[in-house]
Amino acid sequence: MIADKIHISERFLAVRSQTEKICEPLKIEDYVVQPIVDVSPPKWHLGHTTWFFETFVLKPNHKGYQEFDSNYNYLFNSYYESAGARVIRTDRGNITRPGVEEVMQYRAYVNEHMREFLNTNYDERLESLIELGLQHEQQHQELLIYDIKYILGKNPLFPAYSNNPRAESSDKTPLEWLEIKEGIYEIGYNDAGFSFDNEHGYHKTYLNDFAIANRLVTNREYLEFMEAGGYENFRHWLSEAWEWVKENEIEAPEHWHRVDGQWHHYNLNGGLTAINMDAPVTHISFFEADAFAKWKGLRLPTEQEWEVACLNFGLIDSNSNFSESGQYEPVPSQNNNQLNGDCWEWTASAYRPYPYYKAPEGAVGEYNGKFMVNQMVLRGGSCATPRDHIRPTYRNFFHPHLRWMFSGIRLAKDI
Amino acid sequence: MIADKIHISERFLAVRSQTEKICEPLKIEDYVVQPIVDVSPPKWHLGHTTWFFETFVLKPNHKGYQEFDSNYNYLFNSYYESAGARVIRTDRGNITRPGVEEVMQYRAYVNEHMREFLNTNYDERLESLIELGLQHEQQHQELLIYDIKYILGKNPLFPAYSNNPRAESSDKTPLEWLEIKEGIYEIGYNDAGFSFDNEHGYHKTYLNDFAIANRLVTNREYLEFMEAGGYENFRHWLSEAWEWVKENEIEAPEHWHRVDGQWHHYNLNGGLTAINMDAPVTHISFFEADAFAKWKGLRLPTEQEWEVACLNFGLIDSNSNFSESGQYEPVPSQNNNQLNGDCWEWTASAYRPYPYYKAPEGAVGEYNGKFMVNQMVLRGGSCATPRDHIRPTYRNFFHPHLRWMFSGIRLAKDI
Amino acid sequence: MIADKIHISERFLAVRSQTEKICEPLKIEDYVVQPIVDVSPPKWHLGHTTWFFETFVLKPNHKGYQEFDSNYNYLFNSYYESAGARVIRTDRGNITRPGVEEVMQYRAYVNEHMREFLNTNYDERLESLIELGLQHEQQHQELLIYDIKYILGKNPLFPAYSNNPRAESSDKTPLEWLEIKEGIYEIGYNDAGFSFDNEHGYHKTYLNDFAIANRLVTNREYLEFMEAGGYENFRHWLSEAWEWVKENEIEAPEHWHRVDGQWHHYNLNGGLTAINMDAPVTHISFFEADAFAKWKGLRLPTEQEWEVACLNFGLIDSNSNFSESGQYEPVPSQNNNQLNGDCWEWTASAYRPYPYYKAPEGAVGEYNGKFMVNQMVLRGGSCATPRDHIRPTYRNFFHPHLRWMFSGIRLAKDI
Amino acid sequence: MIADKIHISERFLAVRSQTEKICEPLKIEDYVVQPIVDVSPPKWHLGHTTWFFETFVLKPNHKGYQEFDSNYNYLFNSYYESAGARVIRTDRGNITRPGVEEVMQYRAYVNEHMREFLNTNYDERLESLIELGLQHEQQHQELLIYDIKYILGKNPLFPAYSNNPRAESSDKTPLEWLEIKEGIYEIGYNDAGFSFDNEHGYHKTYLNDFAIANRLVTNREYLEFMEAGGYENFRHWLSEAWEWVKENEIEAPEHWHRVDGQWHHYNLNGGLTAINMDAPVTHISFFEADAFAKWKGLRLPTEQEWEVACLNFGLIDSNSNFSESGQYEPVPSQNNNQLNGDCWEWTASAYRPYPYYKAPEGAVGEYNGKFMVNQMVLRGGSCATPRDHIRPTYRNFFHPHLRWMFSGIRLAKDI
Repeated sequence: MIADKIHISERFLAVRSQTEKICEPLKIEDYVVQPIVDVSPPKWHLGHTTWFFETFVLKPNHKGYQEFDSNYNYLFNSYYESAGARVIRTDRGNITRPGVEEVMQYRAYVNEHMREFLNTNYDERLESLIELGLQHEQQHQELLIYDIKYILGKNPLFPAYSNNPRAESSDKTPLEWLEIKEGIYEIGYNDAGFSFDNEHGYHKTYLNDFAIANRLVTNREYLEFMEAGGYENFRHWLSEAWEWVKENEIEAPEHWHRVDGQWHHYNLNGGLTAINMDAPVTHISFFEADAFAKWKGLRLPTEQEWEVACLNFGLIDSNSNFSESGQYEPVPSQNNNQLNGDCWEWTASAYRPYPYYKAPEGAVGEYNGKFMVNQMVLRGGSCATPRDHIRPTYRNFFHPHLRWMFSGIRLAKDI
Repeated sequence: MIADKIHISERFLAVRSQTEKICEPLKIEDYVVQPIVDVSPPKWHLGHTTWFFETFVLKPNHKGYQEFDSNYNYLFNSYYESAGARVIRTDRGNITRPGVEEVMQYRAYVNEHMREFLNTNYDERLESLIELGLQHEQQHQELLIYDIKYILGKNPLFPAYSNNPRAESSDKTPLEWLEIKEGIYEIGYNDAGFSFDNEHGYHKTYLNDFAIANRLVTNREYLEFMEAGGYENFRHWLSEAWEWVKENEIEAPEHWHRVDGQWHHYNLNGGLTAINMDAPVTHISFFEADAFAKWKGLRLPTEQEWEVACLNFGLIDSNSNFSESGQYEPVPSQNNNQLNGDCWEWTASAYRPYPYYKAPEGAVGEYNGKFMVNQMVLRGGSCATPRDHIRPTYRNFFHPHLRWMFSGIRLAKDI
Repeated sequence: MIADKIHISERFLAVRSQTEKICEPLKIEDYVVQPIVDVSPPKWHLGHTTWFFETFVLKPNHKGYQEFDSNYNYLFNSYYESAGARVIRTDRGNITRPGVEEVMQYRAYVNEHMREFLNTNYDERLESLIELGLQHEQQHQELLIYDIKYILGKNPLFPAYSNNPRAESSDKTPLEWLEIKEGIYEIGYNDAGFSFDNEHGYHKTYLNDFAIANRLVTNREYLEFMEAGGYENFRHWLSEAWEWVKENEIEAPEHWHRVDGQWHHYNLNGGLTAINMDAPVTHISFFEADAFAKWKGLRLPTEQEWEVACLNFGLIDSNSNFSESGQYEPVPSQNNNQLNGDCWEWTASAYRPYPYYKAPEGAVGEYNGKFMVNQMVLRGGSCATPRDHIRPTYRNFFHPHLRWMFSGIRLAKDI
Repeated sequence: MIADKIHISERFLAVRSQTEKICEPLKIEDYVVQPIVDVSPPKWHLGHTTWFFETFVLKPNHKGYQEFDSNYNYLFNSYYESAGARVIRTDRGNITRPGVEEVMQYRAYVNEHMREFLNTNYDERLESLIELGLQHEQQHQELLIYDIKYILGKNPLFPAYSNNPRAESSDKTPLEWLEIKEGIYEIGYNDAGFSFDNEHGYHKTYLNDFAIANRLVTNREYLEFMEAGGYENFRHWLSEAWEWVKENEIEAPEHWHRVDGQWHHYNLNGGLTAINMDAPVTHISFFEADAFAKWKGLRLPTEQEWEVACLNFGLIDSNSNFSESGQYEPVPSQNNNQLNGDCWEWTASAYRPYPYYKAPEGAVGEYNGKFMVNQMVLRGGSCATPRDHIRPTYRNFFHPHLRWMFSGIRLAKDI
């Protein structure tokens, strides 16, 4: 038990400090803004993840704990109706105080009290809640990277977040099809260790024969779609997708820019740079992934197919490109069939509850279940996901028009 | 073959005249307006269903056919990108010419040429296209009824569409649970006769043990939810549903009005009337159906569960309440487990393609497939559905916030 | 007094029947719709003008008068906060009942009771109120013509309202400048007879030397502006005007259409027709009038200048083109310096109260004063104005972006 | 001439450093955001005022001048169509780079080159352009104060900008009426020294007898209006004003908050504080000023009346409360009839060109003239206006619904 306490305390501090590390290259100005509703100010992420521990762990459980500032519940609650009133989401980018310094003090204060709490009157029954807080913080680490990329990438100066040398890869993994036989398979989380409620219950599913691609669609392949007039032909697009294309004048993935007739893209590393044609295409919406697959005469895998394929072929490869690489961009496939890292993969499945799904009681019950409509499931993690955060059963979800995250395409087909 | 020609010609005229019969009680003024984007002017329905036959059957196949008016393609195309430019949907209610008289002349002209075509140079290979046109017209008959109800029901005078005596039913079917055992089941259309592309392919699915209610949720039961504060408690609602409730100040089903402290509802028959508490609740959105089920500690069935249950218990009951009854309102259950008629039943399933689904080539390929995102499946037909239009495999679909149609709730649960 | 009673009774019926005459060429369908917020359904105009007499004259003054239908106050109130709740303006085009027939019965009923009232217990003190009702109805006659033109002119079939032979005029009045000397002038209404509150008080104003054009700007002159790139050069435009041009992709006056490379316009008489280049340009916004004048190096007259010029040169010419001509379109100038008829003339003046202005007590106090912000004054009447409705002191007003009415340009300059 | 060069060089640096002084109390975070479209980020003001000198003075006139950064034209152009593309106004708050430090370097760089230019190859013919740049910067100093107040005052923490002791005034100036006789008066700028184009031409105007209040309306008087139900009674309001009140749920001036049942307001000095009832009411829209005056049975003065009264009674009083006081809030009147300082005073006049008005050629011609529609004139300067920036002829203008600036009410009446 002592060992466990040490473990959770260390893990707590490791996760918490990683969040701050992600923000290190930022200027104070970068912490404040919210250019679109989906992007939150980095300062808000820093406060909100801290508020989670203060609100759900310290205040109800740590005797004698003094709230850092009674206004912070209002400022840093995200969407927990159970937790009271909050700044409306679109106003997050208008809030300049508390400043970055005060938010960092808030983090230090809560960290110190968490450390104290974990080392003294910690109750094992809280372990899953604390682990939820850490997983939650890891999710926000990933969102932070998307949001920082959006904030800097939409700036007319295209400032780089980092300027590291980029390993020039010349690998070109040929497309191969991995086959799965029809039958009953079992999916969903069924293990010890942490998992989200939406990965339950563990259940049977029937799959038909199908094949899934051994790698993600590359920038080169996607550019072929663009050059074949993919964005101009309604036949490839869902009806709402076509409206979205027209209304927003979409003609390329997010963060792509035509410079002197050549497509470039904004990367956190290096700013505006030439596109590596062998790397996976990313920053595309479900609408685009679906249109691309239709244009190819293929389709996206369902999340059931994806999970079964992952369990059969993928397993999380330790060479996969997760956030630990620190480069925050997809890289060309290393030919090892990994189904993880680089980009979240849009599936053909709408985000709905599994059989036997029950949302937990209390505020944490608002974590996943209430979003189960009008969104699509993505699988596999990305170059902005911490390696120890992802599992084959992990269900991510976004609205079908969104694309500021690292999203990509893995193709499938009937056989 | 001669027999078939006669048959299709008769069926053609029968379906076509039914559309006009639905409009008979209208005043000319009622044919013109579009109070919300989802409602089309009755005049437009009359023209659009005719345009379908002119555009897809007569013009390409009936030698020497002279188009009635070259402007009508622009006026009466709904959403077929393949068929050229069209009046934008929100403008349909601003178009006063052609008037009802001209549209009726257009119908007569196309009917006459279709009759001629079906009796002379008719090619059997067109049968499925013509049948599609008739099924399409039946769908618009149903929409016509919804739209007429909306146009009259939102009028401050609450004019009645009909004033027929209403059979006072005192039947109260007790709620019973019909059970299905876990296992592999086959669903989807697998028969001769007409079906839509979205009912294919016929495929296996794995179901867990479950039970489904023998009847729809009644107005009485729904009122309990309302009186228990159902519309004020975020805990029952999906996040987007809760936003919808707040933004639109929803507090009761569509067409409900509080008169002197008592809930009434607008019915086509009789106008504003007291609510029959034993009749199924209707005009509710998926958001409300889902919230009600959660409040009950139950859930909606998936479409797979629904279809298997229907095949096991329901079969289309000849006593079910379809449009042939002419009363266009749900009635108390007659205790026969029918899963058809009265109200379309919201399922827990998002509208996505079945395994092996392929959209047909050409303009008719735009019929179903392009709507397969952000919508939910409904099953079973309603009091506005023609009896010969419905099948156990029939997949209807609407956005989760819509409720101007006859939609209702059948509950399910794990066992 | 008897004479007066007869006079007002006759005048009442004459004005009322003129409203109905304007609607005669309409189909029932045309009476119902509201394609933009500024356009009201003709059926609504018919009801609203009747409601004015029922609400302000009959109900408070005619003993024993029975309201026609208690719902009509809600249906036909326009903007009188004092008169209770009302259909929100944007919903007027969704109201199909009462139908045209019932509204005509409502008119007949109120007419009959007004006739009875005027012939029996009529109180002279009500004369100005009744006259206000008649002037109000004449204003709605003019709006009816604009609205009918918009409803038919935006229909893809461009149906004609009338098909009368059009006198081909070859008159080309040369532009001349009428000069006024600087000094103190008196303006505003100062006579017996009817006038609106906004024409008061009669007051002194100081004018500098100026000159005003003897005729309106013609289509030929306006086309020169268009062909000189007037709509593409921000320099001519007010800032809000330029935003309006860009956002709405304005490139010609309202109701102009390019057919096979030639500009045509929709006219009530004849439908889509070639443009008479010698006729005054019409259906332009203040934004366009102001931009045209700036492009010419000239300006619009202030309303004070206009009124003084009118009193000096114009007087209402009995040959001017008012609604009695029944042709409802501007015609080439007959070289007589008339400042009335054809088109309302945008002035440089914002619509604000005159010195000493006081709004009347009661509901009629809502008639003019509450609109005195963000609108511009127009003067002179149009081809849709009844001749006996206009005066040199008459102040019309519209928002600067509107142009569905007969509006035009008279130029002025400093000398 | 040497003397003049020294003078303009000193004045240049004095004005420029005042801008920076205003920003001194800010945190870096405060410089970045744009909570509403009317508020610009302080960082943007700092850059934009500098861009003015770089673009209009240095680049065209200072030989060998190297642009600081070629991206800055795009970033810091406000609305000059002549000066090329620019960040759309609503996006200003999403631009984090250049940061405050770089913008300050930009200021220093341009200051240094301006100093060099003014001391060497300066051409007297540029004097009026440079003075325009300085007046422009003073206008932005005032906007900076409004915007900082909005950014801090809408923050849930209500941080104070300063915490200086506040002189408790117990002065209560009784309301007196200053009378002006009817006659011809001359207004507009007619002097040496700087003035804006919109103050020209100097011209005659006719005024009737009127009286104007000797002081602004106080918070106490305004609260009486509120407590008399002023915000709930449509009769006091212009039609568009009433819509604005309802839609925005307006019930008090901007920056007022009810704390424990007592009205407080946010002040730059001290944050959320009790209201000094003797101080002038401020942060009200024209709509509110007009409604208040109507409720009193009085009216606002026209700008002609105001200017004549100012020339007769007011003159700019050296005791008036301008920005030099550094307290940035209106104070109780010192009983000296001053018509300047404290609050801009809404007049009854729409902002339109004076007789003989001509916009200058070139980009500076976009300064005033293009805004002359849909705005109202305000007079007199405020507690955020530099004393040497204001004149009796100075015409400020805002849209009638705006109120984030220091705006107030001076009453007038006919006599």
